[in-house]
Amino acid sequence: MNLKAYLRQRQQLVDEALERWVPGEKVFPPQVHEAMRYSLFAGGKRLRPILALAATEAVGGRIADTLPLACSLELIHTYSLIHDDLPSMDNDDFRRGRPTSHKVFGEALAILAGDALLTEAFILLARRDLMKGVPPPRRLRAIGEVARAAGSAGMVGGQVMDILAQGKEVTKEVLEYIHGHKTGALISASVGAGAILGGASVKEYKDLRGYGEKVGLAYQIIDDLLDVQGEMKRLGKAVRKDHLQKKATYPALIGLEESRRQANDLVEGALACLQSFSRRANPLREIAKYILKRKN
Amino acid sequence: MNLKAYLRQRQQLVDEALERWVPGEKVFPPQVHEAMRYSLFAGGKRLRPILALAATEAVGGRIADTLPLACSLELIHTYSLIHDDLPSMDNDDFRRGRPTSHKVFGEALAILAGDALLTEAFILLARRDLMKGVPPPRRLRAIGEVARAAGSAGMVGGQVMDILAQGKEVTKEVLEYIHGHKTGALISASVGAGAILGGASVKEYKDLRGYGEKVGLAYQIIDDLLDVQGEMKRLGKAVRKDHLQKKATYPALIGLEESRRQANDLVEGALACLQSFSRRANPLREIAKYILKRKN
Repeated sequence: MNLKAYLRQRQQLVDEALERWVPGEKVFPPQVHEAMRYSLFAGGKRLRPILALAATEAVGGRIADTLPLACSLELIHTYSLIHDDLPSMDNDDFRRGRPTSHKVFGEALAILAGDALLTEAFILLARRDLMKGVPPPRRLRAIGEVARAAGSAGMVGGQVMDILAQGKEVTKEVLEYIHGHKTGALISASVGAGAILGGASVKEYKDLRGYGEKVGLAYQIIDDLLDVQGEMKRLGKAVRKDHLQKKATYPALIGLEESRRQANDLVEGALACLQSFSRRANPLREIAKYILKRKN
Repeated sequence: MNLKAYLRQRQQLVDEALERWVPGEKVFPPQVHEAMRYSLFAGGKRLRPILALAATEAVGGRIADTLPLACSLELIHTYSLIHDDLPSMDNDDFRRGRPTSHKVFGEALAILAGDALLTEAFILLARRDLMKGVPPPRRLRAIGEVARAAGSAGMVGGQVMDILAQGKEVTKEVLEYIHGHKTGALISASVGAGAILGGASVKEYKDLRGYGEKVGLAYQIIDDLLDVQGEMKRLGKAVRKDHLQKKATYPALIGLEESRRQANDLVEGALACLQSFSRRANPLREIAKYILKRKN
């Protein structure tokens, strides 16, 4: 399969759906909708939505029924980025080359845009005019899967530990917790909830969650590696911010080579989780391998 | 009926359920759960949960099935208070006589505790071990009702307009938007979602929503009045904060007497919405009258 074309097509599908389902910039009050859309349409890769759609595909479900879930995952991911960037959190002025939300709209509106994006995810997941082909109990399960992954035992928990770890030496256990929760939880929930909506059997669901957890952690390790390598290129120029804040990363804790090895092992493990799946799981397989190769 | 005893009993029911269903202070990471519970158990009156339970009662439903919804409304209300109090929003140091969340836990943790409370509401609404007596389509409808009320076209929208109005002269229309959305939306959704879970007919649902909208606005007008009267008592002492920030209130715009008259009319209107209901709606009737008489 042509992964590049596949990813591009899926990204477009998700972008069009977000455009359709998220309130427009002129909807009252325009200020908050403008802020929501500023961050939502900032060139994200739509990894979580694409994984959800691919998981539905892997169990033979209809991806049209998973599209609202796919969008809700991107809404939640975007809210988490806005709140992470705030002055009291990571205090970042730029993201993807553009000024962060609070730089453009002010802190109050950035917080509120994040709150609204998180809430919009559940508005979308509960819409009665969508997902008509999915039995309501499945929809409730998917909502639970997504909410738990986003909450205090998931993504928010990871961000809490990340904030508390700033400027401190952290152990590999703490780093694994941070990565596994801050990024990993929503990535595995994307796969898990996509599987649920697609009508996965208990075994299929378990296998796909296993895949999601491994891919999520591998993704974060590669993120850390790209960050360090990027810094090395710019050596002598600006000091890297993660380094400045003594942010824990895999390469800092276990070295570049060992980090790369662990990411490879995780992807191997993720592929093994898909062993009993047919060709329908090929997109998931290709995405896992792609994660190792990605350059940004 | 003895309203005082009724409210006390219902408040206790909600408090016990929150205690049971919201992660404990020692659940990892403890910092965020401690912050969530600090604000959640700060002596709230549990108005929204009690309205949801009373609406279920009014249509002959089982209140045990509405208890998770009732708790979710209080989780959302609490998150909104934490975020409203932040330095970049209303910058309040105290609430209900205790230091606000960001004063105790710092800004980052306060934002994250709010995020986690909002998310926890949807975790609770989707739990498979609860609300077993409610058909899943009804549960989805209730989730949608709550989410829309909390989102950018509801509570968040109201807070956005409130922030943008600070220090400016506002018209009665803008003030009505702010009150109707910042407080009113979640109050009417409490009644509406309680009615849905209780199995309301289309007419019952419409009537109860009408009741909720009127009661929500009356509640906010009385809030404004209590605020002004409290200030007048302390006259000569500290300058009132709303006044300082030139916050729009009903008494400031239309005077004390006219505000009181409008609150009375709204409660009359709310009671009229309940005309076709039996004695089962008596708690809703008593709560509406009580709102006019409350002293805090």
